Amino acid sequence: MNNPSCIFCQIVTGKIPANKIYEDDHILAFLDIQPATMGHTLVMTKHHYDNFLSTPKDDMHWMMNVAQRIGQIQMTMLNARGVNILTNAYPAAGQTVLHVHMHVIPRYSPDDRLRIDMLPANKTTDHQLPLIAAQLVEGLKL
Amino acid sequence: MNNPSCIFCQIVTGKIPANKIYEDDHILAFLDIQPATMGHTLVMTKHHYDNFLSTPKDDMHWMMNVAQRIGQIQMTMLNARGVNILTNAYPAAGQTVLHVHMHVIPRYSPDDRLRIDMLPANKTTDHQLPLIAAQLVEGLKL
Repeated sequence: MNNPSCIFCQIVTGKIPANKIYEDDHILAFLDIQPATMGHTLVMTKHHYDNFLSTPKDDMHWMMNVAQRIGQIQMTMLNARGVNILTNAYPAAGQTVLHVHMHVIPRYSPDDRLRIDMLPANKTTDHQLPLIAAQLVEGLKL
Repeated sequence: MNNPSCIFCQIVTGKIPANKIYEDDHILAFLDIQPATMGHTLVMTKHHYDNFLSTPKDDMHWMMNVAQRIGQIQMTMLNARGVNILTNAYPAAGQTVLHVHMHVIPRYSPDDRLRIDMLPANKTTDHQLPLIAAQLVEGLKL
């Protein structure tokens, strides 16, 4: 259930304090202590799963329900003008704590300090797209 | 159901072509034509909802199921080393097409060209966190 060396599991058990926003039997939401913007919230499962890709569907759905609700509240209570909802799976994607969590990040201006740049990679050319699509379609059949 | 001026609705109806990865009654997944990395996939509901915050729970769950599965496939079929799953709600958060969609972005290296920086905003100081938490908790009660 819990991984004693995981700092998010220690937030679940209360060993490490957090600014909690929401809690039920399955999900805990709390403020990121290094917020990208004011109100940056993390929503995690209480059960330890390493990342989003290894999280069972029920837990994932509960987590997304809370992430959506927190995003709505950030708009109304913090006067955010937009919200990014993001999860990073594995260190190569920027995951730092290896316990599944969604970032719910209120945005106040498109040019605030948070950068989520999605520059075209150049490496993929138009004629490659159908080939990549075919690979992924194949993977779904396995 | 569909919004005739929405380009993603036109992908649903087939008016605009796309490199489709997955399709069922509710969800359509296809390659982003301006990929941040090779294999960058968009997963959207077929029904038009403006953004993630206004998407009903069932549609959201179906969309997340597919996003998770695509991420798993990107790891196995494209040899990705990580995956970012991201949605932007409202233009202030970088949303460009106003039809809900999740970005599923395979990562091959932490220093590939995709930047998802989440620099601490400075604006939030430690003593402010409990106040912000209290505001959000209050919002959840409404």
